[in-house]
Amino acid sequence: MDTAVQPKPTINVKLIVPFINSVRNLFSTMLGMQATVQRPSVKVVPVPLYDVSAIIGFSGEIVGSVVVSFPQKTAIAVASAFAGAPLALSDPDFADAIGELANMIAGGAKKDLGANASITCPSVIIGSGHVIARLRDVPCLAIPCDLPDGGALVIEISIKEVKG
Amino acid sequence: MDTAVQPKPTINVKLIVPFINSVRNLFSTMLGMQATVQRPSVKVVPVPLYDVSAIIGFSGEIVGSVVVSFPQKTAIAVASAFAGAPLALSDPDFADAIGELANMIAGGAKKDLGANASITCPSVIIGSGHVIARLRDVPCLAIPCDLPDGGALVIEISIKEVKG
Repeated sequence: MDTAVQPKPTINVKLIVPFINSVRNLFSTMLGMQATVQRPSVKVVPVPLYDVSAIIGFSGEIVGSVVVSFPQKTAIAVASAFAGAPLALSDPDFADAIGELANMIAGGAKKDLGANASITCPSVIIGSGHVIARLRDVPCLAIPCDLPDGGALVIEISIKEVKG
Repeated sequence: MDTAVQPKPTINVKLIVPFINSVRNLFSTMLGMQATVQRPSVKVVPVPLYDVSAIIGFSGEIVGSVVVSFPQKTAIAVASAFAGAPLALSDPDFADAIGELANMIAGGAKKDLGANASITCPSVIIGSGHVIARLRDVPCLAIPCDLPDGGALVIEISIKEVKG
């Protein structure tokens, strides 16, 4: 009998597509911007993210976390568009706007994940060159997106299903 | 009838004590170190944390997050003591050890919180000068602790009860 080596945990596309749809939908409806999704890549070791990142944790039948990260310039443009007023990095509303955007992306995706999961309130990390390390047994897929005027963001999805 | 202005949300001591007990207990039993708790302070605006922080999110009847943050030198010493072998900042086991410590602190506290809450897997942030912004309507209490040999950590508790 062939005792093949078990494959490493692979990315479950069913868990990824809802996030791609959610980010596209959010940017077009809430911000009037087209988010162009680029080729995703599996992130094996933690490498620095952009300057401003929001983390949303998942628990229940889906565990892990999702990070949305922006270069500072894009973060300011996006937060200002979301708030309807210019926001500086130091403005208390800035982190709220970035956190709420991440919350809406994760919340929009959660509805389509088909699992009984809870999401946490967002935490927003501000600091150039920060690295976020997460569960090593959960694959992390990084999905870069382009925004108008040279803007960019990346969504890092590091979740797995534990139901069944 | 006296219609007094509602006070601002205050820190609920019942939610704080379990974390103080948990951190003391963890350091003494798992690491053989005494963690000396210093005077807590309410953190009104986000200010930079130490170099290495672990975030654990809460959902359910308790919402918010708890951050455990260490200066780099302490983080390396603590992670190495926890793993039983010297760990460098770049070692994949380093973030795992810091995350697992935070998970044990939050998990130990959760048992005593008396609420039906879930905690997320930890995310570990590495980067000097990073700031973590959280929910503005939840007070954040920072509890500094001293460790032997000049080590330090701070636990930031930003959670509230939503049951009832």
